[in-house]
Amino acid sequence: LNIAVLAGDGIGPEIIDQAKKVVDAVCEKKGHEAIYTEALTGAAAIDAVGDPYPEETHKVCMDADAVLFGAIGHPKFDNDPTAKVRPEQGLLRMRKQLGLYANLRPVETFPSLLHKSPLRKDLVEGANFMCIRELTGGIYFGEKGRSEDGNMAFDNCVYTREEIERILKLGFEYAMKRNKKLTVVDKANVLETSRLWRQIAQEMAPNYPEVDTQYMFVDNAAMQLIQWPKNFDVMVTENMFGDILTDEASVITGSLGLLPSASIGLHTSVFEPIHGSYPQAAGKNIANPVATVLSAALMFEYAFELKEEAEIIRKAVAASLEQNFVTEDIDKEQAKKTSEVGDWLAD
Amino acid sequence: LNIAVLAGDGIGPEIIDQAKKVVDAVCEKKGHEAIYTEALTGAAAIDAVGDPYPEETHKVCMDADAVLFGAIGHPKFDNDPTAKVRPEQGLLRMRKQLGLYANLRPVETFPSLLHKSPLRKDLVEGANFMCIRELTGGIYFGEKGRSEDGNMAFDNCVYTREEIERILKLGFEYAMKRNKKLTVVDKANVLETSRLWRQIAQEMAPNYPEVDTQYMFVDNAAMQLIQWPKNFDVMVTENMFGDILTDEASVITGSLGLLPSASIGLHTSVFEPIHGSYPQAAGKNIANPVATVLSAALMFEYAFELKEEAEIIRKAVAASLEQNFVTEDIDKEQAKKTSEVGDWLAD
Ligand SMILES: CC(C)[C@H](C(=O)O)[C@@H](O)C(=O)O
Ligand SMILES: CC(C)[C@H](C(=O)O)[C@@H](O)C(=O)O
Repeated sequence: LNIAVLAGDGIGPEIIDQAKKVVDAVCEKKGHEAIYTEALTGAAAIDAVGDPYPEETHKVCMDADAVLFGAIGHPKFDNDPTAKVRPEQGLLRMRKQLGLYANLRPVETFPSLLHKSPLRKDLVEGANFMCIRELTGGIYFGEKGRSEDGNMAFDNCVYTREEIERILKLGFEYAMKRNKKLTVVDKANVLETSRLWRQIAQEMAPNYPEVDTQYMFVDNAAMQLIQWPKNFDVMVTENMFGDILTDEASVITGSLGLLPSASIGLHTSVFEPIHGSYPQAAGKNIANPVATVLSAALMFEYAFELKEEAEIIRKAVAASLEQNFVTEDIDKEQAKKTSEVGDWLAD
Repeated sequence: LNIAVLAGDGIGPEIIDQAKKVVDAVCEKKGHEAIYTEALTGAAAIDAVGDPYPEETHKVCMDADAVLFGAIGHPKFDNDPTAKVRPEQGLLRMRKQLGLYANLRPVETFPSLLHKSPLRKDLVEGANFMCIRELTGGIYFGEKGRSEDGNMAFDNCVYTREEIERILKLGFEYAMKRNKKLTVVDKANVLETSRLWRQIAQEMAPNYPEVDTQYMFVDNAAMQLIQWPKNFDVMVTENMFGDILTDEASVITGSLGLLPSASIGLHTSVFEPIHGSYPQAAGKNIANPVATVLSAALMFEYAFELKEEAEIIRKAVAASLEQNFVTEDIDKEQAKKTSEVGDWLAD
């Protein structure tokens, strides 16, 4: 199993280390061999070579069977909006160059974590849905710029039928595999791109007669996610709306530190935790490695088609939660260190 | 007091009727005279004259001291993204033509409604903040269109320094009047327009040294609103992000049916409830009129500079909540009708 490892910034390296321990343990148990190739990304890559996604890193990803990704972002770049090179550019270039057109985020509740949810228990208990975000189109990648005097800025949002069809197809297929309900989120009452999305979804829906396809405006979706999270099964939306809604969705369960994601690529796929680089915790051995470990499970399932291996990892995580062998974000009093949790899970 | 009345669609007409009763009662008590001029908007205007914001309606608004607005939108238009005329176009044209550059939404918790909040009581109790949304720029109003074959769509997001400065100024001023904390929400790590927003905010912040100015990415804001709503004082953001975040903010308190809004205009200002046209309830005399009544209070305060009159209305509303004289969305068992609540408040 050829795995490209992009640890990135902040807590990235330490959580990736735990995931590797777990991957190695599963490989040993089941007779696989994991070969890791580390590569630079994010602020770390800017510091080292002046580029957040160097060509060398891209080659490593293209040659790999899958990419395990930590986190990127450093506060020193956030308040300098005019900086010419920023870590996020690397992430965006990686998405584009690897053709990572779909970001999948399963949102789940864990019984032992329900008290962490900001929502009332009755509303969120048992919530379980899949967010699918388009990841290589829209306003993120359209032309952007300034007027000559710098006093006017623009960002163009563009979508083509092809881009919309392939992500909606994924949405319908996931709905078929799950509870057959698809919510297409857009702003078709204002945006032309959204009207194209809705038009194409309406064209495709008859091909999936078993799927209950619903259309929801993004502002309404932002409300419904909080009010009735259990009503969702599969949600699919464009890049910018997906950025906002998937983050919103990830906190309602109280398990942000535990949620993995997969970015499905045309060339190779990337597996990474939902949470960010959490710079305040970097190097302190306190960050929760579980989201990264569960991202490795997704990697076994989707990239290697090794379902059993994925299940073994998920069971280990479930056991650690049941036995409260957890980092301080989950239990401040009896907190274990990042590396201790990694060791325990591998063990 | 020359008031343009745009009742609009769905429950619009019946909730506006209650607000008028209350306005008349206050006027009688304090020796003012309210002169209403009704005008068509929304689906109602499309049905009547084929235009959701007819020139005649615009004239009525321009000639008025303030506009009291109900709600617009009808489901028959929602699933027809290719319809040439839609109610929302009227709303957008009204915003543009009246120069309604700032939408203000005070978000408040009401003690008697806390159990309605989807959030845990300890998180939301006492939350009180002001959302300020830019309302006449950005992707809503940029060029939009399709390729000739219809298979590519685009929406351009544009902001100028002037547009950004005037709304940020309002943000800083509100922060000064409140708890001196301003959260500027953008996506400066991806969008050029956001980088211009952040740059201008950073230029202006030194003029308000007492204000604690924070910058937050929109995806993070979507999370923080749920996790720590009490951390916000004044939030300011661009049009599309504001659409999503203000709706999200409006449900966390459990008092969506009670929240008013003001859209500050260059020519005249518009006062309207946050909630939509709620077509399922139209004509049933069950909708909650309180958000519209509180919008009338905002109108007295901001458009007429009659603070005492605004207070009288707010006290009446507070009393109705305390005495549980409320519509079915608040108390299903002892529900009063829309018109009964209006009469009670006027009384
Ligand atoms: C870091 C940023 C560019 C990125 C995004 O907006 O896509 C992040 O928020 C995410 O969701 O992965
Ligand atoms: C109806 C729609 C065009 C409108 C908007 O998106 O601005 C509404 O959602 C709002 O927030 O007032």
